[in-house]
Amino acid sequence: MRDLITLHEDRLFPVEPAAREVARRLYNEIKDRPIISPHGHTNPSWFADNENFPNPAELLIIPDHYVFRMLYSQGIPLEALGIPHAGGPSDEAVKPDPREIWRLFARHFYLFRGTPSSMWLNWVFREVFGLEQRLSEETADTYYDRIDQLVQTDEFKPRALMDRFNIEVIATTEDPLDPLDHHAKLKSEGWGHRVLTAYRPDNVVDPEYENFSQNLDRLGEMSGFDTRQYDGYLNALAERRVHFKNHGATSSDHGHPTAFTADLSHTEAKDLFARVRHGKATPEDAELFRGHMLTEMARMSVADGLVMQIHPGSYRNHNGLILSKFGRDKGADIPTATDYVRALKPLLNKYGNNPAFSLIIFTLDETSYSRELAPLAGHYPCLKLGPAWWFHDSPEGMRRFREQVTETAGFYNTVGFNDDTRAFLSIPARHDVARRCDCAFLARLVVEHRLDEDEALQVATDLTYNLVKQAYKL
Amino acid sequence: MRDLITLHEDRLFPVEPAAREVARRLYNEIKDRPIISPHGHTNPSWFADNENFPNPAELLIIPDHYVFRMLYSQGIPLEALGIPHAGGPSDEAVKPDPREIWRLFARHFYLFRGTPSSMWLNWVFREVFGLEQRLSEETADTYYDRIDQLVQTDEFKPRALMDRFNIEVIATTEDPLDPLDHHAKLKSEGWGHRVLTAYRPDNVVDPEYENFSQNLDRLGEMSGFDTRQYDGYLNALAERRVHFKNHGATSSDHGHPTAFTADLSHTEAKDLFARVRHGKATPEDAELFRGHMLTEMARMSVADGLVMQIHPGSYRNHNGLILSKFGRDKGADIPTATDYVRALKPLLNKYGNNPAFSLIIFTLDETSYSRELAPLAGHYPCLKLGPAWWFHDSPEGMRRFREQVTETAGFYNTVGFNDDTRAFLSIPARHDVARRCDCAFLARLVVEHRLDEDEALQVATDLTYNLVKQAYKL
Amino acid sequence: MRDLITLHEDRLFPVEPAAREVARRLYNEIKDRPIISPHGHTNPSWFADNENFPNPAELLIIPDHYVFRMLYSQGIPLEALGIPHAGGPSDEAVKPDPREIWRLFARHFYLFRGTPSSMWLNWVFREVFGLEQRLSEETADTYYDRIDQLVQTDEFKPRALMDRFNIEVIATTEDPLDPLDHHAKLKSEGWGHRVLTAYRPDNVVDPEYENFSQNLDRLGEMSGFDTRQYDGYLNALAERRVHFKNHGATSSDHGHPTAFTADLSHTEAKDLFARVRHGKATPEDAELFRGHMLTEMARMSVADGLVMQIHPGSYRNHNGLILSKFGRDKGADIPTATDYVRALKPLLNKYGNNPAFSLIIFTLDETSYSRELAPLAGHYPCLKLGPAWWFHDSPEGMRRFREQVTETAGFYNTVGFNDDTRAFLSIPARHDVARRCDCAFLARLVVEHRLDEDEALQVATDLTYNLVKQAYKL
Repeated sequence: MRDLITLHEDRLFPVEPAAREVARRLYNEIKDRPIISPHGHTNPSWFADNENFPNPAELLIIPDHYVFRMLYSQGIPLEALGIPHAGGPSDEAVKPDPREIWRLFARHFYLFRGTPSSMWLNWVFREVFGLEQRLSEETADTYYDRIDQLVQTDEFKPRALMDRFNIEVIATTEDPLDPLDHHAKLKSEGWGHRVLTAYRPDNVVDPEYENFSQNLDRLGEMSGFDTRQYDGYLNALAERRVHFKNHGATSSDHGHPTAFTADLSHTEAKDLFARVRHGKATPEDAELFRGHMLTEMARMSVADGLVMQIHPGSYRNHNGLILSKFGRDKGADIPTATDYVRALKPLLNKYGNNPAFSLIIFTLDETSYSRELAPLAGHYPCLKLGPAWWFHDSPEGMRRFREQVTETAGFYNTVGFNDDTRAFLSIPARHDVARRCDCAFLARLVVEHRLDEDEALQVATDLTYNLVKQAYKL
Repeated sequence: MRDLITLHEDRLFPVEPAAREVARRLYNEIKDRPIISPHGHTNPSWFADNENFPNPAELLIIPDHYVFRMLYSQGIPLEALGIPHAGGPSDEAVKPDPREIWRLFARHFYLFRGTPSSMWLNWVFREVFGLEQRLSEETADTYYDRIDQLVQTDEFKPRALMDRFNIEVIATTEDPLDPLDHHAKLKSEGWGHRVLTAYRPDNVVDPEYENFSQNLDRLGEMSGFDTRQYDGYLNALAERRVHFKNHGATSSDHGHPTAFTADLSHTEAKDLFARVRHGKATPEDAELFRGHMLTEMARMSVADGLVMQIHPGSYRNHNGLILSKFGRDKGADIPTATDYVRALKPLLNKYGNNPAFSLIIFTLDETSYSRELAPLAGHYPCLKLGPAWWFHDSPEGMRRFREQVTETAGFYNTVGFNDDTRAFLSIPARHDVARRCDCAFLARLVVEHRLDEDEALQVATDLTYNLVKQAYKL
Repeated sequence: MRDLITLHEDRLFPVEPAAREVARRLYNEIKDRPIISPHGHTNPSWFADNENFPNPAELLIIPDHYVFRMLYSQGIPLEALGIPHAGGPSDEAVKPDPREIWRLFARHFYLFRGTPSSMWLNWVFREVFGLEQRLSEETADTYYDRIDQLVQTDEFKPRALMDRFNIEVIATTEDPLDPLDHHAKLKSEGWGHRVLTAYRPDNVVDPEYENFSQNLDRLGEMSGFDTRQYDGYLNALAERRVHFKNHGATSSDHGHPTAFTADLSHTEAKDLFARVRHGKATPEDAELFRGHMLTEMARMSVADGLVMQIHPGSYRNHNGLILSKFGRDKGADIPTATDYVRALKPLLNKYGNNPAFSLIIFTLDETSYSRELAPLAGHYPCLKLGPAWWFHDSPEGMRRFREQVTETAGFYNTVGFNDDTRAFLSIPARHDVARRCDCAFLARLVVEHRLDEDEALQVATDLTYNLVKQAYKL
């Protein structure tokens, strides 16, 4: 009994019986809605090629920085978890056996107590793979064998899981230099409406990005515009946006260190471009250029209708040693205090009242919810708030988001849930957590007589499905 | 049933039965206490002239930026809501019919789900106007007709509502250039003790205020002091404070962009005044002058006994287009991160330990509650904390205020509730929300055995009535 | 009945019956665990000399800045509370009678409603002194007489209370200039394993500390190294660390104004030392030196194994008048916004991945919990998070800590509770509050089906006992 995975039907609902009843009723009405996943990082080749996933370690541990960062924080070397060194071929001599990685993970699974990772993973273990005992040192091999066997079957191929998971549509994220071959294949095979791309130009608008200058050369080749000149560069970016639109994109995504925007004159922008074009930007130049390019992207958004998303506030690759040994995205990105009010003013001044413009803002700095973002979203017609993001994509994080945003911005200036993940198997669990948390929040409003239950049900449906489709033009 | 306005007798109380019982008992003891409204923005002419209010749109929508900002955020043009353009006579040709404005509002009333505006408005609809069906597109005309008819009756004149609402005393806010004619009339008609003024000198202490220079000329004429000189300027401000005191003022109010204070020498201050006097202040000069004038206002407060209120941290008129078309106060003021610890030090260094000085601080940056404001208020004898303000004058906002302030500053370094509103009809609803939220918070302390119920009752009474009167010297 | 102290057996537990049941069960399993107090400010002479404590005012009011700051904030002069003036002998003529101080405190005890001080004090009154009536003006003398009588008995001597309180080990805090005579005596009398020291070098690494230059002279004399030179200074600090280790220290503690760290070259550091050595540091020099010395302390920590604690973010002695009249530590330290991400990078870059390094970070800026500290602790192997600290060592503060930290850092990157107090009699009450709050938080996770009860029990045990001993190497 005590060694079974608990996946209680009332999990995440308020414990008080009257509130729990309301939460249950709301949840039952929306739990079977299809999943709309408008923002995420799954690999489009999975859906295009529809091949089987690899072994349990390569499926569930090695690609998931939520998982290996926690293990690393308790002294487990990344090498022991099979995280490959950056650059150069991986050294097979030191690469650990996947089963050994899995055992190491199993032994330390208690570290995830109280974290959303444990909820997501337990859902995957039980609902996807039918495992009933908790993961532990004792059950590690049973887990490994079962998962390893199942992922080799047809039922566990990506497209089959798309159906099983009831995913109506999923967006991946590509940069403008991506040829979008996988999406072309998906389109040709009738899957284009279910797997979309999204346009993420960080590597060609951020002068501090690795190989920025070469990236712009390549952008020129791909688009047919002369990216040695500012005007050609802008044309190239716009051309790629249209190319992405043709492969299903309805949104762009911008992962800048800050929310800073600028609105330079054409002459100033040309001069700045000339300075940054060849990788010789000062940090101030780089920040100014990124800020100006956000405003340029807003301009293009007005023209081509792609919804703009800004995800600021992460200090990327904080751990120098890890960056040099293992490369980017190894769980060492740390949020920082982020201003939106002054930062977004140039962009909002120019396009904030334009009915053709849609902007979705995310934050890693929860202090901005009630202080800055809800007041901004409760005023500017272009602006909607993205859901609780990254570290805050969790029951407590979602609760804080709703508690701090709703009273000023309402529900209708938010856009439903994003899973924002590359952990494909956990997508239903993540959406389920969001649905449960929204129902729990709404149930509290109902039992405190702040909202009637029929209204709460309408809101739950909108948050789960309607607002997502509207906000992302799906 | 499901289309009736829900105004449940237990609204905003905890749902757990034992806690709800305590909240009810506390609330029943304090709910009928008279309303003390020491800080707000009602129009004194209402009470002085006692004329009927206008039609529903002009009564409830056009003056309420909480309402029209939400509608604007969802793409409804301000023109369609009857918000007049700034400057020049309003163009009757484009001014929409008030009934059409009302219908537009009714159609979008669902946007306010989960916001305090919906609680306040539903209370006004049901308790003031006796409307029982929810507001919707279908009931819009019924609402319009009923409200339009009632507001023309004697029972709905301002003074009658003052009695009906059990408002013992209400303060309005005027600037030093206001002749206070309405308050003089009120005094002569025996209403001087119920409608007070408060002294808000932003337009004569902030060099960046519109027409600052002309305002100082006018201040000179009204006070009889030479405001071309710094000393005459200080005398003029002091003379106006006494004038306000004679019209009932017990407090001053200061709405600065930051909490920055400075304590310049007389010579430095004179030189700075000379620079800013004629509208040629740099932004740094302006900030320094505002900061110095807060300290000067504290000095005058020690002399004349007016309680000083500082309301910092709003980035005013963030939307340039809205400002240029519609003017100030159109729902585009956005809070910013605000420091108090360094900012207030010069002022507190000079007057913080002076028993004759009373300072009430408000914030729009909730992060300062537990970090800065509660620790400051729990030490400095002059300092009390104003209630959750503006965007945070809401159930969740009030809860955060008590949860984050009480453990360090206690209850007795707070000052009860301010409605801070120009929406006269909603004043009882706002005070009722505050009373309910305080009782809900206290009930939690009681059922968690952190406070005895008799103590909680004393605290509830103090927060509702006694502390307000003490803090504002009423 | 209503005048009895309420010390309900379920205090601080959730009110909902199912959750309360879980909290009770968890608490019953851990409530009798010995107290581990790895960080605090009790006076080692109490335990070394084992003399009786003084009268109630000198025992419970005069040394407790939580208590007298609240009284001062409501206009009670510190002189009336017996707080001695700084410097010079205390003037017996004005020193109030301890019984009068006690009466003044009793009359104002209502000010502490809702604060942790009232919980701690009520526990001391009832559990330590057997008082049953609430403290008030009426019972003030009864309290005084009872406490005054009991503290003169053998049962209330420090070592007897250590046993009665079930304190397994307690650490005091000394600076490197302390000869550690009391700890030497304790060691010689067989108490060395129960009363440890901790190394707090602020007065010899902060150039802005009073008498910094003389302190370094003295450091040189004590250590036998030439502290006029940078290398000798480093050797002296290291020598003292070893001396402290020999007196039981397992940790160092660093109370800097910010979390800023720096990593200067040896030449830069020598030059900077030469500038600051004789008290002529600019504020920038001082900050840079403090920051560099944190990194040096980390280096020494790797070498000698002392666990490093950083407590940043307090603006010390904010009230100039109080500082000049009464000296430091008089309740006028105010938290400020604190950055960790950029601030700690130099130190973490150098030692963050070193398995021999242990760093515990505390904060007074709760906004950093979810934004910075949990993400850092959930990645860096060296880093653990200290418990909710100082103003936040309270039920609401502890709840916020767990809610904002757990989902990203888990439980196992935290270190259990610190009482951090000089109020010896309240130590069991403080640990009891922490245990109850942890059980309440865990109970919520259990009833929301986010954690199984057997797992919660393991976590509760770890937070109460195991993690403390591990983190502090006890």
